[in-house]
Amino acid sequence: MASITVKAPADFHVHLRQGGFSKLLAPHVRKGGFTLAYVMPNLKPPVTTTEQALAYKAELQKIEPNVEYLMTLYLSPDLTPDEVRKAKKAGIVGVKSYPRGVTTNSDGGIESYEVYYPTFEAMEQEDLVLNLHGEIPSDAGTNVCVLNAEPAFLPHLRKIHERFPKLRIVLEHATTRAAVEAVKACGPTVACTITAHHIALTVDDWAGQAWNFCKPVAKYPDDRQALREIIKSGHPRFFLGSDSAPHPAHTKSTATPAQSCAAGVYTSPILLPLVAHLLESFGALDRLEGFVSTFGRSFYKRELHEDNAAQVPTVVLKRVEGGELIKEGWTEGEQEVIPFWSGKKIDWVIDEEKSII
Amino acid sequence: MASITVKAPADFHVHLRQGGFSKLLAPHVRKGGFTLAYVMPNLKPPVTTTEQALAYKAELQKIEPNVEYLMTLYLSPDLTPDEVRKAKKAGIVGVKSYPRGVTTNSDGGIESYEVYYPTFEAMEQEDLVLNLHGEIPSDAGTNVCVLNAEPAFLPHLRKIHERFPKLRIVLEHATTRAAVEAVKACGPTVACTITAHHIALTVDDWAGQAWNFCKPVAKYPDDRQALREIIKSGHPRFFLGSDSAPHPAHTKSTATPAQSCAAGVYTSPILLPLVAHLLESFGALDRLEGFVSTFGRSFYKRELHEDNAAQVPTVVLKRVEGGELIKEGWTEGEQEVIPFWSGKKIDWVIDEEKSII
Repeated sequence: MASITVKAPADFHVHLRQGGFSKLLAPHVRKGGFTLAYVMPNLKPPVTTTEQALAYKAELQKIEPNVEYLMTLYLSPDLTPDEVRKAKKAGIVGVKSYPRGVTTNSDGGIESYEVYYPTFEAMEQEDLVLNLHGEIPSDAGTNVCVLNAEPAFLPHLRKIHERFPKLRIVLEHATTRAAVEAVKACGPTVACTITAHHIALTVDDWAGQAWNFCKPVAKYPDDRQALREIIKSGHPRFFLGSDSAPHPAHTKSTATPAQSCAAGVYTSPILLPLVAHLLESFGALDRLEGFVSTFGRSFYKRELHEDNAAQVPTVVLKRVEGGELIKEGWTEGEQEVIPFWSGKKIDWVIDEEKSII
Repeated sequence: MASITVKAPADFHVHLRQGGFSKLLAPHVRKGGFTLAYVMPNLKPPVTTTEQALAYKAELQKIEPNVEYLMTLYLSPDLTPDEVRKAKKAGIVGVKSYPRGVTTNSDGGIESYEVYYPTFEAMEQEDLVLNLHGEIPSDAGTNVCVLNAEPAFLPHLRKIHERFPKLRIVLEHATTRAAVEAVKACGPTVACTITAHHIALTVDDWAGQAWNFCKPVAKYPDDRQALREIIKSGHPRFFLGSDSAPHPAHTKSTATPAQSCAAGVYTSPILLPLVAHLLESFGALDRLEGFVSTFGRSFYKRELHEDNAAQVPTVVLKRVEGGELIKEGWTEGEQEVIPFWSGKKIDWVIDEEKSII
């Protein structure tokens, strides 16, 4: 194949950060071929109210108006059923739950779900989506660490789904075969995002290599295989959420004994070509449009309408002989980010002339 | 307890490197309370002949004469049965096997053991010790990665032990419960070294933290627990081999997308106080002398002889109220090393006045 056309790619899990850093990041969503970004709320302070989410959305629109931002709230005690209804009216799409302390800016994360049942009930009624960071905190006493934190979380997923069968739930950035199986076994209201980097990496790739280190960490080769298989099968409840999570370059590259490197892999500016490249590597290129657009749009009720087909963003990828070298980074003022796959080659690029984005 | 006396601590697995770097490192063996160092042969080029080993030993003795260096050869096709007999006559103690590509300078490592059976047979006859780096190379196709590379190696250990029951074998730097069980199940000719850092760390500690990254990587909390339990039980075939593996500080602290950080944790200069501190943390301080001296000496036939008791090196550790802060590093010319536990506190220090080292 010399070119591929993808209608309206949608990234259902992105970190666009805040302040000056956002100015660098928001335009990279489009650069990577996407015009829909499902925006994570883990800012400092976290986005816990409708007002905050709308203000954040306005800020992002000002930076890059040609992206549709779907906003989320950070699950916390502030999120009362009343606030849920208010959020729904204001166009907020989902609520993100972070277990305490497992990733960037998650110190305010939750410890148990039962206290949120009234909130979940309101969300179910209002049809807001619950986005789960599916890991439990490490605990040496019960042998929980970053490697099994996701499988250990899955009983929570099942329990919430059983209690709220109509609540739409997304298990975010799945990394294990166990997670894939758990989501498959759930009903049609439960979906799962998969990142680009987790279909490329295993634990060996981040052992000693800070640039491939993220949370959840990439797991065993067989886990990666499970992610690839479910994508290749074209299962409609498994779709892209990049979890593109930039950090200033120096916080990634340098570790002192007192300071670990930041967790996160940045894929936004190369996302669609990268996903095409990776899917092709395991024979799933024909699933590209489903994985990056239609499946997620369907679950999130953001389907394209053919009556305004002319306005539908369309990305054309063209194959590059010998591959396109991914550059070493981008800067904006004092901000610097270095993308995943930096210094390596990708077989596809966005055909700017033929694309409508 | 306010003080502890340990007779003749012996570190049965140390990397002393070569050239200018050795000048910084060899004195650190004594600084850490040890006067016996079992020296690894993975130099560039590897130490594969008796001549090389003797030259290396002379070099180390010149730098730091007050340490007993037990020398090893690097298992390779150069190691013929004749060379084994020559090595034995020259006082070489063991032969180290590295699977290809799994750790620092192991590109010349072995791929299968059967071809070495004539060598092993000569070693068995001559009573040379076989030191096994117990990991198989990663292979995504069979789901082998750094996390299960050690359990996947254990069938090799069993097979060699069955074929050569009188050959003394040491499984080096065990990190898993599976390895502990496998060694326990072997006969009295099979022993196991355990590092200081592997009784402190789990995977969470090196995820994103280059200074705790080493090969084999630290595993699950339950694996660490197994190491602690076997030490606490006072099993005589499990003893200290620090695998103290220094790298120039900049190669540890900095990772670029193209260059991972070096694998290795450096414990030599703080070793005995560190081990005391760690053993005390899980109630095994009474096992200190066995773990760091008598068990290993017994297996290696380097027992102390009481008839020359006056000459026996003796280290006295004293407790420090509030703990001793581990310094940030040492330099020698352009060489800089930063130790494990840098910036943290240890409850024990060597009492220089009362120690004979």
